[in-house]
Amino acid sequence: MTSRYSEFFHTTGALGRLVEALNKLPGVGPKTAQRLAYYLIRTDDADARGLALAIIDIRDRITYCSICQNITEADPCRFCTDENRDSSRICVVEEPLDVIAMERTGSYKGTYHVLHGVLSPLDNIGPENLQINELVTRLKENTVTEIILATNPSVEGETTAMYIRDLCGSMVSSITRLARGLPVGGDLEYADDVTLIRAMEGRQEF
Amino acid sequence: MTSRYSEFFHTTGALGRLVEALNKLPGVGPKTAQRLAYYLIRTDDADARGLALAIIDIRDRITYCSICQNITEADPCRFCTDENRDSSRICVVEEPLDVIAMERTGSYKGTYHVLHGVLSPLDNIGPENLQINELVTRLKENTVTEIILATNPSVEGETTAMYIRDLCGSMVSSITRLARGLPVGGDLEYADDVTLIRAMEGRQEF
Repeated sequence: MTSRYSEFFHTTGALGRLVEALNKLPGVGPKTAQRLAYYLIRTDDADARGLALAIIDIRDRITYCSICQNITEADPCRFCTDENRDSSRICVVEEPLDVIAMERTGSYKGTYHVLHGVLSPLDNIGPENLQINELVTRLKENTVTEIILATNPSVEGETTAMYIRDLCGSMVSSITRLARGLPVGGDLEYADDVTLIRAMEGRQEF
Repeated sequence: MTSRYSEFFHTTGALGRLVEALNKLPGVGPKTAQRLAYYLIRTDDADARGLALAIIDIRDRITYCSICQNITEADPCRFCTDENRDSSRICVVEEPLDVIAMERTGSYKGTYHVLHGVLSPLDNIGPENLQINELVTRLKENTVTEIILATNPSVEGETTAMYIRDLCGSMVSSITRLARGLPVGGDLEYADDVTLIRAMEGRQEF
């Protein structure tokens, strides 16, 4: 095989193919790909092959939960089937990693809904590219009292949250948004203006 | 499987195993491992499985050249078997990636010798851990006129170069070291003191 990278790096065959495959990973440039390839050559056989098998395994096993659209090995996922969780509350997040972040806090005992992205007209991502219809279907078929909009505090995240509020507002009794304000442990002096404005707007009785 | 990461990330099974395997790569922390795992779930099946197969492939195929110790699929490697290359000159480098860097210049037509590391007493790496004996054997069994010491311009690289010079100096007519000096395109104002001293010491008729 002769390709752009194998020519550039004078590495053909197995090494060239590995460097190219690694180079496709997000945040991994040609130099890092070389370093990683070299590591994979030198490391324990069990570690290198373990990574390969873990990749194949995840492609064979992972699917999407038909209810909350989160990634899962069993459908419905463990959050949707857990009877100890409050299924009348749905926390709407952008990505599966956001579910992991929320779960790490241990403070939320409702269910989730994963959008798999945010509205972004510039990238041609509209409501039909996200799992929003699936959310509407869930609201119609189940008794949901609260939707917690937990999209990121970015322009796209805010837009997506507003879109869902307008679309689903009449279907549930309460739609909330995660609080914006000063991050705990942060420094007021270094907070950006928008965060400070939000913190002021969202001030609470003390 | 329940392990440190799977508990922390609340990810068990296939995803937990993949995050752990990715986390073992150099420069990949838990957060990056999560991001990469998520990418590998979402990307094309061909890309993800291609990476897995490339890893398995390299473990199955790559070996070390019995002459120059470089990584190769065929032993001896293509540099050692290339009749157009001058086998009486040996460029000694630390790592296979250094061979790739030298080859990219297109200016060197001799052979290589890969040490697979540098002398580093603090890390318990002595001459016996490097491919230095193999270099001595090469010098004894072949007619070599020049050794080019191309270890890195670091403390360990300099030490290793000096060790090889003392060990092999009597066996070849010429031992050279890559020039140290100002990098091309660099700025004298920002050059560190040692580089500037080396550049002054190594100044040439103009």
